[in-house]
Amino acid sequence: MSKLRVNCFSMSIDGYGAGPDQSLAQPLGVGGTGLHEWVLATRTFRKLFGQQGGTTGADDDFVARGFDHVGAWILGRNMFGPVRGPWPDDTWKGWWGADPPYHTPVFVLTHHARASIAMDGGTTFHFVTDGMHAALERARQAAQGRDVRVGGGVATIRAYLRAGLIDEMHLALAPTLLGRGEALLADIDLPALGYERTERVSTPAAMHVVVTKRRAQTT
Amino acid sequence: MSKLRVNCFSMSIDGYGAGPDQSLAQPLGVGGTGLHEWVLATRTFRKLFGQQGGTTGADDDFVARGFDHVGAWILGRNMFGPVRGPWPDDTWKGWWGADPPYHTPVFVLTHHARASIAMDGGTTFHFVTDGMHAALERARQAAQGRDVRVGGGVATIRAYLRAGLIDEMHLALAPTLLGRGEALLADIDLPALGYERTERVSTPAAMHVVVTKRRAQTT
Repeated sequence: MSKLRVNCFSMSIDGYGAGPDQSLAQPLGVGGTGLHEWVLATRTFRKLFGQQGGTTGADDDFVARGFDHVGAWILGRNMFGPVRGPWPDDTWKGWWGADPPYHTPVFVLTHHARASIAMDGGTTFHFVTDGMHAALERARQAAQGRDVRVGGGVATIRAYLRAGLIDEMHLALAPTLLGRGEALLADIDLPALGYERTERVSTPAAMHVVVTKRRAQTT
Repeated sequence: MSKLRVNCFSMSIDGYGAGPDQSLAQPLGVGGTGLHEWVLATRTFRKLFGQQGGTTGADDDFVARGFDHVGAWILGRNMFGPVRGPWPDDTWKGWWGADPPYHTPVFVLTHHARASIAMDGGTTFHFVTDGMHAALERARQAAQGRDVRVGGGVATIRAYLRAGLIDEMHLALAPTLLGRGEALLADIDLPALGYERTERVSTPAAMHVVVTKRRAQTT
């Protein structure tokens, strides 16, 4: 069965999934790169961007697993770029260059319509203006039985969590302090929404936990 | 120089330092024991309560370090017990039995005066009704040059953090979800208050981080 997943989402000691004041120069917000040190060092991540080498082990396994069996992605608009409000033109095509690391259809949540963009390597960005449920429906169709991964950002993950739609979420707690930013889990009662922690793995760089939604019993 | 310290304070994935609905039956709040699994297994903790065996290694080292060079403790009233409002009588003497694991003077913050209680093993509970600064002053005097440890709970630690008075805080992030409870770091900007992460150690049971306040430069 096709799942809705979050993978490799980093959170600081103080609970933030992104730093404050995102901009073109600071895509992850101020201090946000500290969140992702554990992923940047891995072999799988480096390979995605054409680099050699990198670490193997649990950190790398989680990164690789994040791409397994994924047939479509959903991104919030701020994860797609720093542009706010109506699109001034078609110049902005994401942070990731001509060949983004998705290689699937990617559905970007926005209030402002825009034509789809086919990138190199099989990534196509589609812009969805009729809400998170419509985006999920389109992504599931596009995924053709494979899973849909919500890439972020924080607000997008929170919306799908609160709606109880995420089936599985892998978080990586990074040993860094941000002080300000977007709090990922504040005021979200995961156990009450039916989630439980199903995996935990500690590495020197991060504490990995997987949170899974209990399926309704089929008695 | 005598420091004000927090040690071995556990926090859940979702940022809570205690579960909701503390009571006589649930001293750590509902679900709160999951926070402390990493400490309950250690040799040092077991020894405190007269038990044999237990784990050694980084978890145990942090527990032992938490008692090193401590000359006095400060506790919030809810950490001392489940009684709220005026003390009905002198029956309640803490959660810990006749010989509490402090073995120093312990200053309990409360709005309701009560006579000091001398326990076995060198622990004396003093009840401070004139606020957190007065409690710190009395604890420093009692510690005679050794450190003062703030045991908790969450509200007490938050108050001393916000006042910039904690010199060093060791947190243990436990791979557990609480869903509700008392959020330890919500809306506290530690970097802006002068804190930085100075240590990190991962074990299978917890991610340990130490946060330290930068000292004013003496140029």
